[in-house]
Amino acid sequence: MEEYQQSKLNRVKRGQNRATYDVDKINTILDAGFLCYVGYIYDGKPITIPMAYARREDKIYIHGSTGNRMLLSILESEKTSITVMHLDGLVLARSGLHHSVNYRSVTLFGNLKKLEKDTDKKDVLKWIVNQMVPNQWESLRPMYQKELDRTLVVEFTIETASAKVRDVGVADEPEDYELDVWAGIVPIKQVAEYPIADKGKPENMKIPKHILDYYEANK
Amino acid sequence: MEEYQQSKLNRVKRGQNRATYDVDKINTILDAGFLCYVGYIYDGKPITIPMAYARREDKIYIHGSTGNRMLLSILESEKTSITVMHLDGLVLARSGLHHSVNYRSVTLFGNLKKLEKDTDKKDVLKWIVNQMVPNQWESLRPMYQKELDRTLVVEFTIETASAKVRDVGVADEPEDYELDVWAGIVPIKQVAEYPIADKGKPENMKIPKHILDYYEANK
Repeated sequence: MEEYQQSKLNRVKRGQNRATYDVDKINTILDAGFLCYVGYIYDGKPITIPMAYARREDKIYIHGSTGNRMLLSILESEKTSITVMHLDGLVLARSGLHHSVNYRSVTLFGNLKKLEKDTDKKDVLKWIVNQMVPNQWESLRPMYQKELDRTLVVEFTIETASAKVRDVGVADEPEDYELDVWAGIVPIKQVAEYPIADKGKPENMKIPKHILDYYEANK
Repeated sequence: MEEYQQSKLNRVKRGQNRATYDVDKINTILDAGFLCYVGYIYDGKPITIPMAYARREDKIYIHGSTGNRMLLSILESEKTSITVMHLDGLVLARSGLHHSVNYRSVTLFGNLKKLEKDTDKKDVLKWIVNQMVPNQWESLRPMYQKELDRTLVVEFTIETASAKVRDVGVADEPEDYELDVWAGIVPIKQVAEYPIADKGKPENMKIPKHILDYYEANK
């Protein structure tokens, strides 16, 4: 079992029983989503920006316009972290204090590099689109050079990371189990609804198999 | 229409057509969720922590243990911001560049105060539980004083804020509408599944109406 090394930066302080540094478990959480929360410091304050991402090996890729204030700032300062969270349920306990949520979350620290080569940038943009909907890139109009030229692609290499997972039932005070208070879990999930065709040709086209597959897997 | 004043901190630079500073619209987005992303600076790096919240007027309330490293840090430094995002759909365009998501997001800046009075703290904890599931607090075992004593409640007063909303269809290059590429929206939403009773008494209790109401409204 390969693990990220624990340091002051990534060691989980609260709820250590829910923490893991296992590389495979962290990658599984990352691969279950496509939206991350990127932190950066602007004017002395931490700001969090939601962004699409893709993961390959120990690298997270994000992108934006070549003028993207946040990407340019974190490339220069390397002061950033990336958080991904999936909400899995509401934990409704018998007391307020033990209310919680079931979730899988990851926090990543690492170093950043701007990708310069067109072939590398194109690969990453394909991965980002396909992390959202598998096989989607292959159905699209190929990128124009001018589109590639105005896109900034950033490679974030994970140096250290931690995950927290809560996936158990209610944990109440021992004496509270006798109370006549309902307690339990309300599972929460993110689902896809049936695809809505754009105006024009798509209205008369069959929805591609890979998009229907995505819908079936996520409905 | 009341609006937050625009400053260097909250002015939206990218996608200004999607930006709003309208207080009511921002509050509506905040009231549609209960999980926020709180930014703080640790060891020079911005870290984002997911937390439950409640909103009342221009205030956001968050809480944690009295030893919570992040809450203590932002109370001292006032260097924080709060982000809330709801994902509403995948925007599958005819080209990679125009892929996007539909969403509602808010970023808040403000000042922080630790609540000291027990009655104030109790009110807030009730609001936080009820922001997750309306009317839930009223069904619970009352809080013990020792539980209140070890809970840190933070009041964040919104000083400036911005929201970004994308809620339209695909926006492709004019010449791409003639391509034989399927394009459209895959709506995404967060849903609740049927409540699962905890072991013991709840297995033989009726699920309370307010929890069934939550399920019906979110299934």
